[in-house]
Amino acid sequence: MIKIKKEELKDIFLSKLITRGFAAEDADLCAEIFTENTVCGVYSHGINRFPLFIEYIDKGLIKPNAKPSLVKSYFAIEQWNGNLGPGPLNAYFVTNRAIELAEKYGIGCVALKNTNHWMRAGYYGWMAAEKGFIFICWTNTIPNLPPWNAKQATTGNNPIVFAVPKKNGPVVLDMALSQFSYGKIAEYINEKRPLPYYGGYDSQGNLTKDPTEINKTQRALPIGLWKGAGLSLLLDMIASILAEGNSTADLSNSEYDTGMSQVFIAVKPVFNTGLEEYVDKILKYYKSAEPVSVEEVITYPGERSAQFKKKCEEEGIPIEEGLLEKIKSL
Amino acid sequence: MIKIKKEELKDIFLSKLITRGFAAEDADLCAEIFTENTVCGVYSHGINRFPLFIEYIDKGLIKPNAKPSLVKSYFAIEQWNGNLGPGPLNAYFVTNRAIELAEKYGIGCVALKNTNHWMRAGYYGWMAAEKGFIFICWTNTIPNLPPWNAKQATTGNNPIVFAVPKKNGPVVLDMALSQFSYGKIAEYINEKRPLPYYGGYDSQGNLTKDPTEINKTQRALPIGLWKGAGLSLLLDMIASILAEGNSTADLSNSEYDTGMSQVFIAVKPVFNTGLEEYVDKILKYYKSAEPVSVEEVITYPGERSAQFKKKCEEEGIPIEEGLLEKIKSL
Repeated sequence: MIKIKKEELKDIFLSKLITRGFAAEDADLCAEIFTENTVCGVYSHGINRFPLFIEYIDKGLIKPNAKPSLVKSYFAIEQWNGNLGPGPLNAYFVTNRAIELAEKYGIGCVALKNTNHWMRAGYYGWMAAEKGFIFICWTNTIPNLPPWNAKQATTGNNPIVFAVPKKNGPVVLDMALSQFSYGKIAEYINEKRPLPYYGGYDSQGNLTKDPTEINKTQRALPIGLWKGAGLSLLLDMIASILAEGNSTADLSNSEYDTGMSQVFIAVKPVFNTGLEEYVDKILKYYKSAEPVSVEEVITYPGERSAQFKKKCEEEGIPIEEGLLEKIKSL
Repeated sequence: MIKIKKEELKDIFLSKLITRGFAAEDADLCAEIFTENTVCGVYSHGINRFPLFIEYIDKGLIKPNAKPSLVKSYFAIEQWNGNLGPGPLNAYFVTNRAIELAEKYGIGCVALKNTNHWMRAGYYGWMAAEKGFIFICWTNTIPNLPPWNAKQATTGNNPIVFAVPKKNGPVVLDMALSQFSYGKIAEYINEKRPLPYYGGYDSQGNLTKDPTEINKTQRALPIGLWKGAGLSLLLDMIASILAEGNSTADLSNSEYDTGMSQVFIAVKPVFNTGLEEYVDKILKYYKSAEPVSVEEVITYPGERSAQFKKKCEEEGIPIEEGLLEKIKSL
């Protein structure tokens, strides 16, 4: 494990994106997002996934210079086509568009079709919240979550984000609807560690903490059992209907993870001049609960990410040397 | 257990509401909602809770004739004060208001403060979806869910609804953020049955399926463990900020379950002329998964409710005679 400066890591990403034909400005933003995701501790959707991102570009599945285009609009809602451009750039663009709509109408909703994996969902929540907006966004995915009582995955783990602004760092929940995202499962496989809680089923149909088994069966455990499976279905429906894009059913026909549908909803907290006091009071009360043991700390969503980021900025980002070499050689 | 016709049950509710000073039209709608909730199989927020609803009226906590009033508005978002009127009537009113805003702007959001328990959250999802709208709504609650790693409940189980229209009955997810709602826990206590899965912690701090223990400790298990606890925090923040109403922290100061904040978001699927085909395709794929055993059936959210309703309409609503007598004597 070595430690590397943020700027240094970004430059490595940047140079690789330039070689793949990204325009300078796009390469910069895309490298920034991959770096930020890593710095926030979400390696699975930062540095760890960068090689796959490049592979998708090389296969022609991600089109470096494709830009989102407006398909339909009706006051505060819009439908955009991602034209199979880079997922993070598409998501960044429509997050800003949802914010513009919310600025005008109080609430704005953009549905995006034909996009690619946006990497860390939370990025767009942080982005909107840092601009002062309440934000909800989600994506559908390839089938990787079974309905309740089912053996096969016929719905997705459809990550969803809820974000609320706060002066010294927003509150951002970024969660896949499986107990562990496949990105997280890949991290545990990589580190040869069992999951801390049941995360899915093994080949015999039993609950397991073995990340390799879950990756094999693709039978992840939905959060809240039947509840998460149901939520997954609803999020897929809403995203694909509003975007008139691919549903998980459509995505099941491809062997690649591309062409998904996403929803972005921004709300301007226009009424509430005392937002900061609300957030502080709620967090203070939330954290007043006694921990189950002296080693445990009550944290709010986004808090650990912010702490990890601070540490990385002070001490450098810890990265496996082999992975860094691999990325340099892409 | 006796069986009673829908109209008969509604008349019993209606007569009781009239004695409590409800205007005829309000009594009719309120009785209709309590009946519908029961007919849909959610007794915990239908007939079972009617006595508590009357108790709250008698204590002056629910004001039968209070009407919601507009506080602030900004294009597609509005803030309403529920003025401590009956929760179901307030929620019904602002659901329609969110729909009107969505009709005009594509998406509409109403935040409601100072309201009372809306009973079955899903009612408003069905209502909006049956009018052709995609709908999301949620409420905050008194503290009844612990943050992850915490002993005390300092957040709520904040039920949330996602609804999508469908010609022959919408798809509606109505879920509390605890694995089992306290309404459901009360049903199991009433039927002297253990929960089918772990639902919370006992007095020793161990996971338990004993509903009485969970009711005692008020340490319900969040869906998705840390994920549901985090979602609960975010929903409370968004609801209380947009409504400028009570947060769970504020609600913790009262011994009664009153004065909560709620959010209602309606979206007009204005772009999608082929909505029905989307929904059908997605459901068909979802249900194509092989069940874990021959006894299990893959269902979508809202499907069992619709089946129960159909059966009740054909055969009458099964009700404990003692409960019916109790309600008649209120």
